[in-house]
Amino acid sequence: MESLQDAASLADLGRETREASRVLAALSPEQRTEAVEQMAVALEESVAEIVAANREDLAAAEAEGLSSALYARLKLDEAKLASEIAGVRSVGRLPDPVGRRQIRRELDTNLILTRMTCPVGVLGVIFESRPDAAIQISALAVKSGNGAVLKGGREAERTCRAIMTALRRGLAHSAAPAAALQLLTTREEIAQLLTLDRYVDLIIPRGSNAFVRYVQDNTRIPVLGHADGICHLYIDRAANLDRAVALAVDAKVQYAAACNAIETLLVHSAIAPTFLPAAAEALREQGVRLLADNRAAAYIRDAQIATDADWGTEYLDLVLTVKTVGSLQEAIDHINTFGSRHTDAIATEDAEAARNFLSLVDSAGVYHNASTRFADGFRYGFGAEVGISTQKMPPRGPVGLEGLVTYKYLLEGTGQIVADYAGSEARPFTHRDLEE
Amino acid sequence: MESLQDAASLADLGRETREASRVLAALSPEQRTEAVEQMAVALEESVAEIVAANREDLAAAEAEGLSSALYARLKLDEAKLASEIAGVRSVGRLPDPVGRRQIRRELDTNLILTRMTCPVGVLGVIFESRPDAAIQISALAVKSGNGAVLKGGREAERTCRAIMTALRRGLAHSAAPAAALQLLTTREEIAQLLTLDRYVDLIIPRGSNAFVRYVQDNTRIPVLGHADGICHLYIDRAANLDRAVALAVDAKVQYAAACNAIETLLVHSAIAPTFLPAAAEALREQGVRLLADNRAAAYIRDAQIATDADWGTEYLDLVLTVKTVGSLQEAIDHINTFGSRHTDAIATEDAEAARNFLSLVDSAGVYHNASTRFADGFRYGFGAEVGISTQKMPPRGPVGLEGLVTYKYLLEGTGQIVADYAGSEARPFTHRDLEE
Repeated sequence: MESLQDAASLADLGRETREASRVLAALSPEQRTEAVEQMAVALEESVAEIVAANREDLAAAEAEGLSSALYARLKLDEAKLASEIAGVRSVGRLPDPVGRRQIRRELDTNLILTRMTCPVGVLGVIFESRPDAAIQISALAVKSGNGAVLKGGREAERTCRAIMTALRRGLAHSAAPAAALQLLTTREEIAQLLTLDRYVDLIIPRGSNAFVRYVQDNTRIPVLGHADGICHLYIDRAANLDRAVALAVDAKVQYAAACNAIETLLVHSAIAPTFLPAAAEALREQGVRLLADNRAAAYIRDAQIATDADWGTEYLDLVLTVKTVGSLQEAIDHINTFGSRHTDAIATEDAEAARNFLSLVDSAGVYHNASTRFADGFRYGFGAEVGISTQKMPPRGPVGLEGLVTYKYLLEGTGQIVADYAGSEARPFTHRDLEE
Repeated sequence: MESLQDAASLADLGRETREASRVLAALSPEQRTEAVEQMAVALEESVAEIVAANREDLAAAEAEGLSSALYARLKLDEAKLASEIAGVRSVGRLPDPVGRRQIRRELDTNLILTRMTCPVGVLGVIFESRPDAAIQISALAVKSGNGAVLKGGREAERTCRAIMTALRRGLAHSAAPAAALQLLTTREEIAQLLTLDRYVDLIIPRGSNAFVRYVQDNTRIPVLGHADGICHLYIDRAANLDRAVALAVDAKVQYAAACNAIETLLVHSAIAPTFLPAAAEALREQGVRLLADNRAAAYIRDAQIATDADWGTEYLDLVLTVKTVGSLQEAIDHINTFGSRHTDAIATEDAEAARNFLSLVDSAGVYHNASTRFADGFRYGFGAEVGISTQKMPPRGPVGLEGLVTYKYLLEGTGQIVADYAGSEARPFTHRDLEE
């Protein structure tokens, strides 16, 4: 990582990445795909170094008493690395997101407007623990023509260094500049990175809710991601009982620590007497602790009573709040008030109720008779996932490579001036969309 | 404006607008179009009140010694109002941006993913002086299913009140709630508005560079717009002389106060001896003052010498900086360093040079042999313009109604759970795009 140590400051590193990203953006799709392949080759050649570095990180983590969950996420052995390298190659095979014509319009004879996708520029990616994130994000960045400045967790520092050394060596064997990928190693650099709006175009934070909120509150750079994932499943009065129970169990326990797992079950009071005892039993069998409002608690054996704060809490654990509602509208209002605009579902056999729910719930994902756990770029068929965004503006929801490109307008003329199209003798525009 | 005076606080007003925006979003396209028509009708019925209120604003402005430019922008007489009302009706006739399917994909049998456009929610619009902005933005907001909280300049307060009273009366005669449009009247409310990220989804500031920067620096809400418009025209060594001179004149003088007028002319040193004397003469005839670097000054009669600060200054006036460059790359580097990523053009007959310029200049608009003054939503054929964004992320460049919608993912199933698609016996996804 010479260039990193030589960099007089983080701003220099930012400028260097910006310049490298411009070279990368100007490469052909074939050259960018080849650069991704060279990254995979270099990782293959460096398996021994990377695994050895990871063992050092693991030993240090053990000595510091890292939790077993974090330890598992930190671990990168031969098998996991092989699957990550296969992942790099599958990113290389994705359709190229750059250079797509979205608009091609004649404004007048020989005056052609084209809107074309292009890379965003430089990504700032901050992640915790999982060193494989460095591999995935680097592959996605290079495939989409973007430079990236990465900052991994301190506990993964040796592994990340070994990975980035390999990835940059791979780039050096391609037409892409090695400086397009950079690694930061100290925590202090995070705050500085967030101020580099001149050189960094998009921040992608991957970490705890509190961390993402810190990032959102401390930068002018657009942030792709989400803090909370407070997802709901609403059991309508017209729900099919068995399906509804299965959906509730899957949405809560299939992977409770995921952002798209539900935190709250809303139940129409008309179906509560039949649904709740069955659902509570099925959830209890999976080890789920239930916090219920008073009306719901009447149908749940040994239920704890939920407090107001529970409706806005993301447990990321086998805990589920349960609330009865008197109407579909009350369910929608609860979700729009306490939800985090991530993913919310309705279970019902009533098509009209489903239509209203999908129309009125203001979330990135609105589901009818499907588990919220489907909210994921791979399951949506995007091939790769950059993250899930709960911002209102696009990209929203699970974001694939598409979230790493923007567009620019190209106008190609033969000397046209606006004065000819203004005033009483104004020449009219044709505004004719051209076939490709 | 009872609801405004009754509102206990700005947060209440924000919540009220949010609720109204949800009703608006759920209307049919025909109902939203009819709401826009009722806004036009109500304005027609209120011409006398609006013009009278405007006369009071004008009298007060005159007494306070408002500049003639601001006075002209404040003025709203019968003729201008009639043209604004026609503008409302043309917004009503635009294609509906809501409810468009962008993706329709089978994830598995009977599990259908749809990505559909939907309104952003609530817009916060802050504008100076021109009261007609309240009319345009309100029409665009309602057409796209969004609520809007508007804050006009203090000098236009009476006019804005009369306009908003009419517009809300129009909404009350339609299926849309009057509370979808709100007016703020005190300057202090701007700072509060910027904190309402719970109720406002997008801020659109229309005003001075300093004001837009203040907004960008003081809110977590996404901001649509641009601060500086530092646009360039690069005269390549292979430029056609007459065309290049005509482009330079148009791009500078056709409307010098516009953000898409050029501030800097970059000239290849090989063409400077022939181009510069001709261009300088043509520009001087139009009253343009030239600030040149030393090499360029040699070819310009009585040129002033530019200082380093000039390359980063937006004059919004008949002032143009002129700099010679030794190569296309030097021109590109200058633009990427000193430009504001708005709109930049090359004049050349060399197709290869044009291709490189369009590829490597990192701006929302990159033009070949066309005036930068074409950067405008109407000229691009969008029918209406919300603003011009110099952010990297979409929407970028001139933004039409499309910038006021986002999208959500709808997933419609028959009880599918993720557990069936995970593990060693995982059911595969079909990921089949469906024809419409």
